[in-house]
Amino acid sequence: MKDKTIDYVLRSTWQLVTRMYNEEAHKFESTMAMGFTLLSIDPENGSPSTTLGPRMGMEATSLSRLLKNLEGRGLIYRTPNPDDGRGVIIRLTPEGKEKRDISREVVLRFNDTIRNHVSESDLKGFYNVAETIQGLISERKIYQDQNKD
Amino acid sequence: MKDKTIDYVLRSTWQLVTRMYNEEAHKFESTMAMGFTLLSIDPENGSPSTTLGPRMGMEATSLSRLLKNLEGRGLIYRTPNPDDGRGVIIRLTPEGKEKRDISREVVLRFNDTIRNHVSESDLKGFYNVAETIQGLISERKIYQDQNKD
Repeated sequence: MKDKTIDYVLRSTWQLVTRMYNEEAHKFESTMAMGFTLLSIDPENGSPSTTLGPRMGMEATSLSRLLKNLEGRGLIYRTPNPDDGRGVIIRLTPEGKEKRDISREVVLRFNDTIRNHVSESDLKGFYNVAETIQGLISERKIYQDQNKD
Repeated sequence: MKDKTIDYVLRSTWQLVTRMYNEEAHKFESTMAMGFTLLSIDPENGSPSTTLGPRMGMEATSLSRLLKNLEGRGLIYRTPNPDDGRGVIIRLTPEGKEKRDISREVVLRFNDTIRNHVSESDLKGFYNVAETIQGLISERKIYQDQNKD
Protein backbone atom coordinates (compact mmCIF):
# COMPACT_ATOMS: atom_id res chain seq x y z
CA MET A 1 0.00 0.00 0.00
CA LYS A 2 2.95 2.34 0.68
CA ASP A 3 3.40 3.00 -3.04
CA LYS A 4 -0.17 4.33 -3.34
CA THR A 5 -0.90 8.03 -3.17
CA ILE A 6 -2.54 9.41 -0.03
CA ASP A 7 -5.72 10.34 -1.90
CA TYR A 8 -5.93 6.84 -3.43
CA VAL A 9 -5.66 5.27 0.04
CA LEU A 10 -8.34 7.61 1.40
CA ARG A 11 -10.67 6.93 -1.51
CA SER A 12 -10.26 3.16 -1.68
CA THR A 13 -10.58 2.81 2.10
CA TRP A 14 -13.70 4.95 2.26
CA GLN A 15 -15.20 3.03 -0.68
CA LEU A 16 -14.72 -0.26 1.19
CA VAL A 17 -16.25 1.20 4.37
CA THR A 18 -19.19 2.49 2.34
CA ARG A 19 -19.80 -0.90 0.78
CA MET A 20 -19.56 -2.61 4.18
CA TYR A 21 -21.93 -0.15 5.86
CA ASN A 22 -24.42 -0.50 3.02
CA GLU A 23 -24.26 -4.29 3.34
CA GLU A 24 -24.95 -4.03 7.07
CA ALA A 25 -27.74 -1.50 6.53
CA HIS A 26 -29.27 -3.78 3.90
CA LYS A 27 -29.86 -6.42 6.61
CA PHE A 28 -32.21 -3.90 8.23
CA GLU A 29 -33.74 -2.78 4.94
CA SER A 30 -31.85 0.48 5.27
CA THR A 31 -28.92 2.28 3.65
CA MET A 32 -25.75 3.87 4.98
CA ALA A 33 -27.13 7.34 4.20
CA MET A 34 -30.30 6.64 6.17
CA GLY A 35 -28.28 5.36 9.12
CA PHE A 36 -26.04 8.43 9.10
CA THR A 37 -29.09 10.69 8.97
CA LEU A 38 -30.66 9.01 12.00
CA LEU A 39 -27.33 9.33 13.83
CA SER A 40 -27.23 13.05 13.04
CA ILE A 41 -30.58 13.67 14.74
CA ASP A 42 -30.55 14.39 18.49
CA PRO A 43 -32.63 11.52 19.93
CA GLU A 44 -34.02 13.62 22.79
CA ASN A 45 -34.60 17.10 21.38
CA GLY A 46 -34.60 16.54 17.64
CA SER A 47 -32.45 18.67 15.33
CA PRO A 48 -33.20 21.70 13.15
CA SER A 49 -33.34 20.45 9.55
CA THR A 50 -30.88 23.17 8.50
CA THR A 51 -28.13 21.74 10.74
CA LEU A 52 -28.29 18.23 9.24
CA GLY A 53 -26.95 18.96 5.74
CA PRO A 54 -23.72 20.64 6.87
CA ARG A 55 -23.21 18.04 9.59
CA MET A 56 -23.49 15.23 7.02
CA GLY A 57 -21.66 17.06 4.23
CA MET A 58 -24.73 16.65 2.07
CA GLU A 59 -26.52 18.77 -0.53
CA ALA A 60 -29.95 20.12 0.43
CA THR A 61 -31.77 18.19 -2.32
CA SER A 62 -30.21 14.83 -1.39
CA LEU A 63 -31.00 15.44 2.28
CA SER A 64 -34.56 16.45 1.50
CA ARG A 65 -35.09 13.19 -0.43
CA LEU A 66 -33.61 11.19 2.42
CA LEU A 67 -35.82 12.89 5.01
CA LYS A 68 -38.92 12.27 2.90
CA ASN A 69 -37.95 8.59 2.71
CA LEU A 70 -37.37 8.36 6.49
CA GLU A 71 -40.67 10.12 7.13
CA GLY A 72 -42.47 7.68 4.82
CA ARG A 73 -41.05 4.80 6.86
CA GLY A 74 -42.33 6.35 10.08
CA LEU A 75 -38.84 6.89 11.51
CA ILE A 76 -38.97 10.69 11.77
CA TYR A 77 -41.54 13.47 11.99
CA ARG A 78 -41.41 17.24 11.73
CA THR A 79 -42.45 19.92 14.21
CA PRO A 80 -42.22 23.72 13.82
CA ASN A 81 -38.99 25.28 15.06
CA PRO A 82 -39.90 27.71 17.89
CA ASP A 83 -36.66 29.64 17.21
CA ASP A 84 -37.24 29.95 13.47
CA GLY A 85 -40.72 30.69 12.16
CA ARG A 86 -40.09 29.05 8.78
CA GLY A 87 -37.86 26.25 10.04
CA VAL A 88 -38.64 22.73 11.21
CA ILE A 89 -37.23 20.42 13.83
CA ILE A 90 -36.67 16.83 12.71
CA ARG A 91 -37.55 14.37 15.49
CA LEU A 92 -37.21 10.61 15.83
CA THR A 93 -40.27 8.41 16.37
CA PRO A 94 -39.88 5.51 18.81
CA GLU A 95 -39.12 3.23 15.86
CA GLY A 96 -36.66 5.84 14.55
CA LYS A 97 -34.87 5.74 17.90
CA GLU A 98 -34.64 1.95 17.68
CA LYS A 99 -33.18 2.15 14.18
CA ARG A 100 -30.79 4.86 15.36
CA ASP A 101 -29.55 2.56 18.13
CA ILE A 102 -28.88 -0.16 15.56
CA SER A 103 -26.93 2.30 13.38
CA ARG A 104 -24.98 3.37 16.42
CA GLU A 105 -24.03 -0.22 17.24
CA VAL A 106 -22.92 -0.86 13.65
CA VAL A 107 -20.70 2.24 13.69
CA LEU A 108 -19.29 1.52 17.16
CA ARG A 109 -18.56 -2.08 16.24
CA PHE A 110 -16.54 -0.95 13.24
CA ASN A 111 -14.63 1.67 15.18
CA ASP A 112 -13.94 -0.57 18.18
CA THR A 113 -12.71 -3.39 15.95
CA ILE A 114 -10.29 -1.10 14.13
CA ARG A 115 -9.05 0.45 17.38
CA ASN A 116 -8.37 -3.03 18.74
CA HIS A 117 -6.24 -3.88 15.72
CA VAL A 118 -4.02 -0.79 15.46
CA SER A 119 -1.40 0.67 17.78
CA GLU A 120 -2.04 3.88 19.68
CA SER A 121 0.76 5.62 17.77
CA ASP A 122 -0.51 4.50 14.36
CA LEU A 123 -3.97 5.77 15.26
CA LYS A 124 -2.46 9.08 16.33
CA GLY A 125 -0.67 9.25 12.98
CA PHE A 126 -3.91 8.54 11.14
CA TYR A 127 -5.71 11.37 12.98
CA ASN A 128 -2.78 13.74 12.53
CA VAL A 129 -2.59 13.15 8.78
CA ALA A 130 -6.36 13.56 8.38
CA GLU A 131 -6.23 16.76 10.44
CA THR A 132 -3.37 18.10 8.32
CA ILE A 133 -5.26 17.32 5.09
CA GLN A 134 -8.40 19.04 6.36
CA GLY A 135 -6.42 22.02 7.60
CA LEU A 136 -4.45 22.54 4.38
CA ILE A 137 -7.58 22.21 2.24
CA SER A 138 -9.65 24.52 4.43
CA GLU A 139 -6.89 27.15 4.38
CA ARG A 140 -6.64 26.64 0.59
CA LYS A 141 -2.93 25.98 0.79
CA ILE A 142 -2.65 23.12 -1.68
CA TYR A 143 -2.86 24.93 -5.02
CA GLN A 144 -1.05 28.22 -5.49
CA ASP A 145 -3.80 29.93 -7.40
CA GLN A 146 -6.25 29.11 -4.61
CA ASN A 147 -4.87 32.14 -2.78
CA LYS A 148 -6.11 34.41 -5.53
CA ASP A 149 -9.72 33.31 -5.25
CA MET B 1 -10.68 15.67 15.92
CA LYS B 2 -9.58 12.91 18.35
CA ASP B 3 -13.13 12.57 19.67
CA LYS B 4 -14.47 11.75 16.18
CA THR B 5 -14.95 8.16 15.07
CA ILE B 6 -12.52 6.72 12.54
CA ASP B 7 -15.22 6.39 9.89
CA TYR B 8 -16.28 10.01 10.43
CA VAL B 9 -12.69 11.18 9.94
CA LEU B 10 -12.33 9.09 6.77
CA ARG B 11 -15.62 10.35 5.37
CA SER B 12 -15.20 14.04 6.18
CA THR B 13 -11.60 14.06 4.93
CA TRP B 14 -12.49 12.31 1.68
CA GLN B 15 -15.44 14.71 1.19
CA LEU B 16 -13.10 17.69 1.48
CA VAL B 17 -10.61 16.14 -0.96
CA THR B 18 -13.47 15.44 -3.38
CA ARG B 19 -14.66 19.03 -3.24
CA MET B 20 -11.11 20.34 -3.71
CA TYR B 21 -10.41 18.04 -6.67
CA ASN B 22 -13.71 18.99 -8.30
CA GLU B 23 -12.86 22.67 -7.84
CA GLU B 24 -9.49 22.14 -9.51
CA ALA B 25 -11.04 20.05 -12.30
CA HIS B 26 -13.63 22.78 -12.86
CA LYS B 27 -10.84 25.16 -13.86
CA PHE B 28 -10.19 22.81 -16.79
CA GLU B 29 -13.88 22.24 -17.53
CA SER B 30 -13.52 18.76 -16.11
CA THR B 31 -14.58 16.76 -13.04
CA MET B 32 -12.72 14.65 -10.51
CA ALA B 33 -14.27 11.49 -11.95
CA MET B 34 -13.07 12.38 -15.45
CA GLY B 35 -9.57 13.08 -14.14
CA PHE B 36 -9.43 9.76 -12.29
CA THR B 37 -10.62 7.95 -15.40
CA LEU B 38 -7.88 9.49 -17.53
CA LEU B 39 -5.33 8.56 -14.85
CA SER B 40 -6.56 4.96 -14.90
CA ILE B 41 -5.84 4.60 -18.62
CA ASP B 42 -2.33 3.51 -19.64
CA PRO B 43 -1.08 6.45 -21.73
CA GLU B 44 1.05 4.24 -24.02
CA ASN B 45 -0.91 1.03 -24.54
CA GLY B 46 -4.42 1.97 -23.51
CA SER B 47 -6.40 -0.17 -21.04
CA PRO B 48 -9.08 -2.83 -21.49
CA SER B 49 -12.40 -1.21 -20.57
CA THR B 50 -13.16 -4.09 -18.20
CA THR B 51 -10.15 -3.26 -16.00
CA LEU B 52 -11.16 0.38 -15.44
CA GLY B 53 -14.29 -0.15 -13.32
CA PRO B 54 -12.63 -2.33 -10.67
CA ARG B 55 -9.55 -0.10 -10.63
CA MET B 56 -11.71 2.94 -9.96
CA GLY B 57 -14.17 1.20 -7.64
CA MET B 58 -16.96 2.23 -9.99
CA GLU B 59 -20.16 0.62 -11.25
CA ALA B 60 -20.28 -0.37 -14.93
CA THR B 61 -23.11 2.04 -15.76
CA SER B 62 -21.38 5.07 -14.19
CA LEU B 63 -18.14 4.18 -15.95
CA SER B 64 -19.90 3.72 -19.27
CA ARG B 65 -21.46 7.20 -18.96
CA LEU B 66 -18.07 8.70 -18.09
CA LEU B 67 -16.36 7.02 -21.06
CA LYS B 68 -19.07 8.24 -23.42
CA ASN B 69 -18.53 11.76 -22.08
CA LEU B 70 -14.73 11.54 -22.49
CA GLU B 71 -15.17 10.15 -26.00
CA GLY B 72 -17.50 13.03 -26.89
CA ARG B 73 -14.82 15.47 -25.77
CA GLY B 74 -12.25 13.77 -27.99
CA LEU B 75 -10.10 12.66 -25.06
CA ILE B 76 -10.35 8.90 -25.61
CA TYR B 77 -11.15 6.46 -28.41
CA ARG B 78 -11.86 2.74 -28.57
CA THR B 79 -10.08 -0.03 -30.48
CA PRO B 80 -10.91 -3.77 -30.52
CA ASN B 81 -9.13 -5.84 -27.87
CA PRO B 82 -6.97 -8.43 -29.70
CA ASP B 83 -7.07 -10.66 -26.60
CA ASP B 84 -10.86 -10.51 -26.21
CA GLY B 85 -13.07 -10.67 -29.28
CA ARG B 86 -15.93 -8.78 -27.65
CA GLY B 87 -13.80 -6.42 -25.57
CA VAL B 88 -12.41 -2.96 -26.31
CA ILE B 89 -9.23 -1.13 -25.41
CA ILE B 90 -9.71 2.46 -24.24
CA ARG B 91 -6.93 4.70 -25.57
CA LEU B 92 -6.04 8.34 -24.98
CA THR B 93 -5.99 10.84 -27.84
CA PRO B 94 -3.16 13.41 -27.82
CA GLU B 95 -5.52 15.85 -26.11
CA GLY B 96 -6.51 13.11 -23.65
CA LYS B 97 -2.83 12.64 -22.80
CA GLU B 98 -2.48 16.37 -22.17
CA LYS B 99 -5.50 16.35 -19.87
CA ARG B 100 -4.16 13.26 -18.14
CA ASP B 101 -0.89 15.09 -17.45
CA ILE B 102 -2.83 17.95 -15.86
CA SER B 103 -4.76 15.50 -13.66
CA ARG B 104 -1.48 13.88 -12.69
CA GLU B 105 -0.01 17.22 -11.65
CA VAL B 106 -3.08 18.08 -9.57
CA VAL B 107 -2.91 14.74 -7.75
CA LEU B 108 0.86 14.92 -7.23
CA ARG B 109 0.63 18.48 -5.95
CA PHE B 110 -1.90 17.41 -3.33
CA ASN B 111 0.10 14.38 -2.25
CA ASP B 112 3.44 16.21 -2.15
CA THR B 113 1.97 19.05 -0.12
CA ILE B 114 0.52 16.67 2.46
CA ARG B 115 3.74 14.66 2.66
CA ASN B 116 5.68 17.88 3.30
CA HIS B 117 3.41 18.74 6.23
CA VAL B 118 3.31 15.43 8.12
CA SER B 119 6.00 13.43 9.88
CA GLU B 120 7.25 10.15 8.45
CA SER B 121 5.90 8.27 11.46
CA ASP B 122 2.45 9.88 11.25
CA LEU B 123 2.30 8.98 7.56
CA LYS B 124 3.28 5.41 8.41
CA GLY B 125 0.47 5.35 10.99
CA PHE B 126 -2.01 6.64 8.42
CA TYR B 127 -1.05 3.90 5.94
CA ASN B 128 -1.06 1.22 8.63
CA VAL B 129 -4.54 2.15 9.86
CA ALA B 130 -5.90 2.27 6.29
CA GLU B 131 -4.31 -1.11 5.55
CA THR B 132 -5.81 -2.58 8.74
CA ILE B 133 -9.27 -1.25 7.83
CA GLN B 134 -9.05 -2.66 4.31
CA GLY B 135 -7.76 -6.00 5.59
CA LEU B 136 -10.43 -6.42 8.27
CA ILE B 137 -13.21 -5.49 5.86
CA SER B 138 -11.91 -7.73 3.07
CA GLU B 139 -11.62 -10.67 5.48
CA ARG B 140 -15.12 -9.84 6.74
CA LYS B 141 -13.93 -9.68 10.33
CA ILE B 142 -15.90 -6.65 11.52
CA TYR B 143 -19.38 -8.08 11.99
CA GLN B 144 -19.82 -11.53 13.52
CA ASP B 145 -22.58 -12.64 11.20
CA GLN B 146 -20.44 -11.77 8.19
CA ASN B 147 -18.75 -15.15 8.69
CA LYS B 148 -22.03 -16.91 8.03
CA ASP B 149 -22.53 -15.31 4.61
